[in-house]
Amino acid sequence: MDFGHDARTVHLLGELGSFMDEFVYPAEPVLAEQLADPGRDPWRIPPVIGELRAAAKARGLWNLFLPGELGAGLTNLQYAPLAELTGRSVLLAPAAVNCAAPDTGNMELLAQFGSAEQREQWLRPLLDGDIRSAFAMTEPDVASSDATNITTRIERDGDEYVVNGRKWYITGAMNPDCRIFIVMGKTDPDADVRRQQSMILVPRDTPGVRVLRGMRVFGYEDADHGGHAEILFEDVRVPAANLIGEEGSGFAIAQARLGPGRIHHCMRALGMAERALELTCRRVNSRVAFGRPLADQGVVQDWIAEARVRIEQARLLVLKTAWLMDTVGNRGAHTEIQAIKIAVPSTVEWILDKAVQAHGAAGVSQDTALAQLWAGNRTLRLADGPDEVHKRSLARRELKKYR
Amino acid sequence: MDFGHDARTVHLLGELGSFMDEFVYPAEPVLAEQLADPGRDPWRIPPVIGELRAAAKARGLWNLFLPGELGAGLTNLQYAPLAELTGRSVLLAPAAVNCAAPDTGNMELLAQFGSAEQREQWLRPLLDGDIRSAFAMTEPDVASSDATNITTRIERDGDEYVVNGRKWYITGAMNPDCRIFIVMGKTDPDADVRRQQSMILVPRDTPGVRVLRGMRVFGYEDADHGGHAEILFEDVRVPAANLIGEEGSGFAIAQARLGPGRIHHCMRALGMAERALELTCRRVNSRVAFGRPLADQGVVQDWIAEARVRIEQARLLVLKTAWLMDTVGNRGAHTEIQAIKIAVPSTVEWILDKAVQAHGAAGVSQDTALAQLWAGNRTLRLADGPDEVHKRSLARRELKKYR
Amino acid sequence: MDFGHDARTVHLLGELGSFMDEFVYPAEPVLAEQLADPGRDPWRIPPVIGELRAAAKARGLWNLFLPGELGAGLTNLQYAPLAELTGRSVLLAPAAVNCAAPDTGNMELLAQFGSAEQREQWLRPLLDGDIRSAFAMTEPDVASSDATNITTRIERDGDEYVVNGRKWYITGAMNPDCRIFIVMGKTDPDADVRRQQSMILVPRDTPGVRVLRGMRVFGYEDADHGGHAEILFEDVRVPAANLIGEEGSGFAIAQARLGPGRIHHCMRALGMAERALELTCRRVNSRVAFGRPLADQGVVQDWIAEARVRIEQARLLVLKTAWLMDTVGNRGAHTEIQAIKIAVPSTVEWILDKAVQAHGAAGVSQDTALAQLWAGNRTLRLADGPDEVHKRSLARRELKKYR
Amino acid sequence: MDFGHDARTVHLLGELGSFMDEFVYPAEPVLAEQLADPGRDPWRIPPVIGELRAAAKARGLWNLFLPGELGAGLTNLQYAPLAELTGRSVLLAPAAVNCAAPDTGNMELLAQFGSAEQREQWLRPLLDGDIRSAFAMTEPDVASSDATNITTRIERDGDEYVVNGRKWYITGAMNPDCRIFIVMGKTDPDADVRRQQSMILVPRDTPGVRVLRGMRVFGYEDADHGGHAEILFEDVRVPAANLIGEEGSGFAIAQARLGPGRIHHCMRALGMAERALELTCRRVNSRVAFGRPLADQGVVQDWIAEARVRIEQARLLVLKTAWLMDTVGNRGAHTEIQAIKIAVPSTVEWILDKAVQAHGAAGVSQDTALAQLWAGNRTLRLADGPDEVHKRSLARRELKKYR
Repeated sequence: MDFGHDARTVHLLGELGSFMDEFVYPAEPVLAEQLADPGRDPWRIPPVIGELRAAAKARGLWNLFLPGELGAGLTNLQYAPLAELTGRSVLLAPAAVNCAAPDTGNMELLAQFGSAEQREQWLRPLLDGDIRSAFAMTEPDVASSDATNITTRIERDGDEYVVNGRKWYITGAMNPDCRIFIVMGKTDPDADVRRQQSMILVPRDTPGVRVLRGMRVFGYEDADHGGHAEILFEDVRVPAANLIGEEGSGFAIAQARLGPGRIHHCMRALGMAERALELTCRRVNSRVAFGRPLADQGVVQDWIAEARVRIEQARLLVLKTAWLMDTVGNRGAHTEIQAIKIAVPSTVEWILDKAVQAHGAAGVSQDTALAQLWAGNRTLRLADGPDEVHKRSLARRELKKYR
Repeated sequence: MDFGHDARTVHLLGELGSFMDEFVYPAEPVLAEQLADPGRDPWRIPPVIGELRAAAKARGLWNLFLPGELGAGLTNLQYAPLAELTGRSVLLAPAAVNCAAPDTGNMELLAQFGSAEQREQWLRPLLDGDIRSAFAMTEPDVASSDATNITTRIERDGDEYVVNGRKWYITGAMNPDCRIFIVMGKTDPDADVRRQQSMILVPRDTPGVRVLRGMRVFGYEDADHGGHAEILFEDVRVPAANLIGEEGSGFAIAQARLGPGRIHHCMRALGMAERALELTCRRVNSRVAFGRPLADQGVVQDWIAEARVRIEQARLLVLKTAWLMDTVGNRGAHTEIQAIKIAVPSTVEWILDKAVQAHGAAGVSQDTALAQLWAGNRTLRLADGPDEVHKRSLARRELKKYR
Repeated sequence: MDFGHDARTVHLLGELGSFMDEFVYPAEPVLAEQLADPGRDPWRIPPVIGELRAAAKARGLWNLFLPGELGAGLTNLQYAPLAELTGRSVLLAPAAVNCAAPDTGNMELLAQFGSAEQREQWLRPLLDGDIRSAFAMTEPDVASSDATNITTRIERDGDEYVVNGRKWYITGAMNPDCRIFIVMGKTDPDADVRRQQSMILVPRDTPGVRVLRGMRVFGYEDADHGGHAEILFEDVRVPAANLIGEEGSGFAIAQARLGPGRIHHCMRALGMAERALELTCRRVNSRVAFGRPLADQGVVQDWIAEARVRIEQARLLVLKTAWLMDTVGNRGAHTEIQAIKIAVPSTVEWILDKAVQAHGAAGVSQDTALAQLWAGNRTLRLADGPDEVHKRSLARRELKKYR
Repeated sequence: MDFGHDARTVHLLGELGSFMDEFVYPAEPVLAEQLADPGRDPWRIPPVIGELRAAAKARGLWNLFLPGELGAGLTNLQYAPLAELTGRSVLLAPAAVNCAAPDTGNMELLAQFGSAEQREQWLRPLLDGDIRSAFAMTEPDVASSDATNITTRIERDGDEYVVNGRKWYITGAMNPDCRIFIVMGKTDPDADVRRQQSMILVPRDTPGVRVLRGMRVFGYEDADHGGHAEILFEDVRVPAANLIGEEGSGFAIAQARLGPGRIHHCMRALGMAERALELTCRRVNSRVAFGRPLADQGVVQDWIAEARVRIEQARLLVLKTAWLMDTVGNRGAHTEIQAIKIAVPSTVEWILDKAVQAHGAAGVSQDTALAQLWAGNRTLRLADGPDEVHKRSLARRELKKYR
């Protein structure tokens, strides 16, 4: 269980750190300005992000998340501190280095399960950063944490599949550059519970695809990264070759996709927490009330100490999980992946709440990123299975040891 | 300490309950639709609210908050359950019955401290519902919980006062029908700490008043009730007669205004919590995952029981506070007002968080009110003095008993 | 919902307050001394308690808990502040005024369900304070929160009943003056679930009764009030007339007994919390570390404010519950009784924890009562049904409203 | 940052695990029996512990805690899992392998700072397990977390030092085999704050030493390991050579002693938590209420999942701290030592609380170890500086980074 940074990680951390300092942090006010422009195309990604992407790509800071030859080829343990660093400016940095969800998970999925044609047609431009993608699993009318609830149908009709269903909270899909959707649905509702679903590639411009509206997250449209779309699929026909893997493999592919996705979220969330803690310290050092800086208040000090102690613990658990994924595989790291999925968003939520409180009205406003970070992180407690589902599952495995 | 409903309260509760059922709840989807209309004037109050106001006024459900002959003449204890009831549809009902903040506090202030002319010119149309108002106290650059930090200047120049300063989070002020601002500033920075401030009436259309932008609350613009403006006052000149009370009385007037304002917020917050609990129960009774309704999950039951137990306690403390304000006055109820300011928003936040979680993605979306309620309630932990300031003050009084 | 003190309550509060000041508080160090005496009979109630009882009885401060003509005839609402006051010195005051559990519940039970002979033989000396009693329900080998689990048998054999079973945590039963046990067991294991149990009077000196040992509570033997016995009943024969009520009525009688028992515990617990808060304030006002009194520490102030706010809420809920019990009966107050059973011990535990922390090593020692109070209060979270059982039950009623 | 077990650790874990299984766990009921024997010498360590010590020593499982040639020579990282394992039976195993506090800290202190004579006279028999020792720092009348408050005097008088003062909670000192006390006091109250204190060796049988009484911890006397004594030192004369190090070095020695002491407590506490979690799982798997095992209750599952997630995080932070102490020294690990001192006892307290709750009455009784473990662990939140002091200190270092 060695969590140390090897030479490559140290090198990349240096490169990425310089990139953050020179490009990303200075771009934060630019992004805010561009998003506030009333005349802008509301769902087009602001140009500053494109500029950052070009700069990052030129420096080789690109596709860091992707193992194997198609990407940077890093282990999870190598990637962890880099992902955390991007989390410090989470609206900009992950997209800048082509490591933003949901593209990351989609690229991994295509790299692992896509056919040669699928990889050529969709993975290639995603890796090059020419297009963006979305992952369409969650449905509005059912508890999607239970995959058997999914109602979208994918039916074979000759050389085609016909997709019918309604999805929502499809992150990134409001962005017109999001060209391809990976849609989860049932090909065989009568099969065994874990063999009913399949995944299929649906290009955005396929007839019958209707991107209805942007769903909000505590008031945020998240237009900076393509929002969260509600999408109606009405008799959408795609070639049979668009199916990913074989019929009935959707559940297994989803499971494979989710492990890395969860840990990437957790890595970035730690960066958010570190940034929030730094902002809090700076704020309370400089803000004066009742004759002394807020930093002298015992309760504020208590928050800061707790934040530091909690971050340290959460990070170590993320690193252990990364190390396990690298050494025994995602399946062997099942308990730990669940553990960080449970622990990290709660920890980060607590820290962001205190950061908001320390900033007063500015903390809930558009003038700091804190409230938006809070909202984004809050969804992690329910996205991809609410905490309660993961806790129950983890507990049952623990209980089995003593039965 | 009698918290029972007297005949008048029972009667009004019946009337208001019918009004909620017939008018307010059915108007909720209408409001959502009107707010979502892309072509609308972004800060104009949606027309459905005007219609509700007309209906409520016609039924005599009007100015219920205001004691004395100018209003409904209710005690705090009589008003408490009515205000709670309006909290169940907090984006509509308080405005419908002309009991929405900040107008309520402003009307009370004018009724109590305004000159005959001020009352005639501004209180009258506010009571009639013809205009709206704002209270401009918080400033962006200082910790406003410490009133000595306020930097806005109100300087006498002949028959006029000249106002210079920057305010933000001025609720309601984005609404063009918000015609009058009550501005807090320093008339004498060298006076004793509690005699430096004054309040002055500044009409919206006075030269030098610049309403800069709408501040957001966790992404929400709160356009339904006029948003939260940042306002710049640059050499704004108003007649000397616009000063409320005498020079140096601003701090005392603010204190007088805040007690009722705090308890009104708490009353409404209880209604929000009751509504959220009802929505949660309905949701978990109907939503199925892993083969049974969410309502069968032990953790969900735990939330519901806790929510009920916490609401009961919080409500009783609000009622005791109302009773004390009625019987020994706001000053005599100082500790209790502080206690509910501390306790109620936290309690309601906890309940709203669980309601969001029980609703999954819908809970953070625009399709339920929960996330917006959460955001609005979250600000109560820092608006009008953060919890930490109130706790310290309350603790000091407790400690003094044993010194 | 009137929680005010009527004239009789005011009068009794004055009398009891004087008694506390003159007799009870000064007796606290005496009790500690007597309990520490290595030569004493380990389970005999220390003599100081007998002296206090005599003094209280002489002043008419006696059986305050008991409604009707046999006792002081107070309502629950009248009794509440008196019981709270006794909770301030909970090892002495409740026993001093013959209002200590489990005698209170046993006396109520006998008054309500006992035959004339039972009342004469056992209730009379209990009311006079000549003997003490115990209530034997909990069993070591099963989850007693589910009454159907009870395994003790009460079998009819001619003119007698034969009792066999093992009970534990039978409070007060180590005291040799505890002369009578009310034993719960099954007379008909095949009957409907709620008609299987009966209660029967078993005198301590009946052959076959073996008081095995004193159970501890976090190390405490609670010898001051007769400890908590493990008792074996082996072929214990008592006259058939010792059965309380009819066969199969045990469950119903237990339910009737528990409501008042729960609220009495809560009332006293509030007194414990008030005392702990007072001790904490005194301690932190006087204790100096790092150059200033602990009272100046922000975190300590936070504790004190929270404690005050939580106590106020908990007390009001207890008062509402008392008022409901008085006006609509124990059954009508079912939800509220459950609510205080859930809320009050947790609240008081939190406060006692902070009081311990503020006292440092003294807080966990025998030199303050705090740790013992903490332990006693901790058991309330599991005695008479753990919180989890009560929450589930309360939640189900809430959920039913919306089904 | 490599937390893996090296070959020696793996080997020792195997040996110690076998010893636990064969000797320690079977001895737990024996210890309980011996402690319950009414005829025993109340403060003499029960004989079963001596037998375990002999067995452990024979197997070379001895002085594992002590780095260097005098002990097992393990690093902190090597020792961590071994210490955790002993924590699973914390009343027996640490003493069995001569790794129990406060002897461990005292041996380290003597090894590091003792003169050759001091080591020969006191360290040797401690290492051999022939005697026990105590560390006398805490005083009853002051906040000892602030070392400047210490009032005990150590005054030079010719060839002797004269010690006067009162200490309490001197763990182990009630045990008559505890032959030597290390006493902290002031040799020069006028010196610089960190140069006032010295430490001196005071044999138990020195005239003027009065072991007054055993202090309790939530009712527990902790007689199994020598209790916690209050000791009066009245004109106690010892040779000047008994001073440890030089005059004024007491503060520095204390600091050096505390780091390892804190981490050892945390390591063992993790073992307590693991044991409690195992007991909880076994209990809820087997206990039935309302027709199904407690393990099926959602709230119980939530506890178990939370417990596992929290333990994992806490353990990793302890391991990181151990690794830091090994690689950059105790001073370099200052923040992390403080972090685990804050985090681990709270985490373990939470888990023990749930374990108690899951066990019902048995959980607070003498029939499981849970309540005693809870009490012992609770003191860690205030012993050796309350959490609040450590948090403040940690926060200040964090705040300094951004000033």
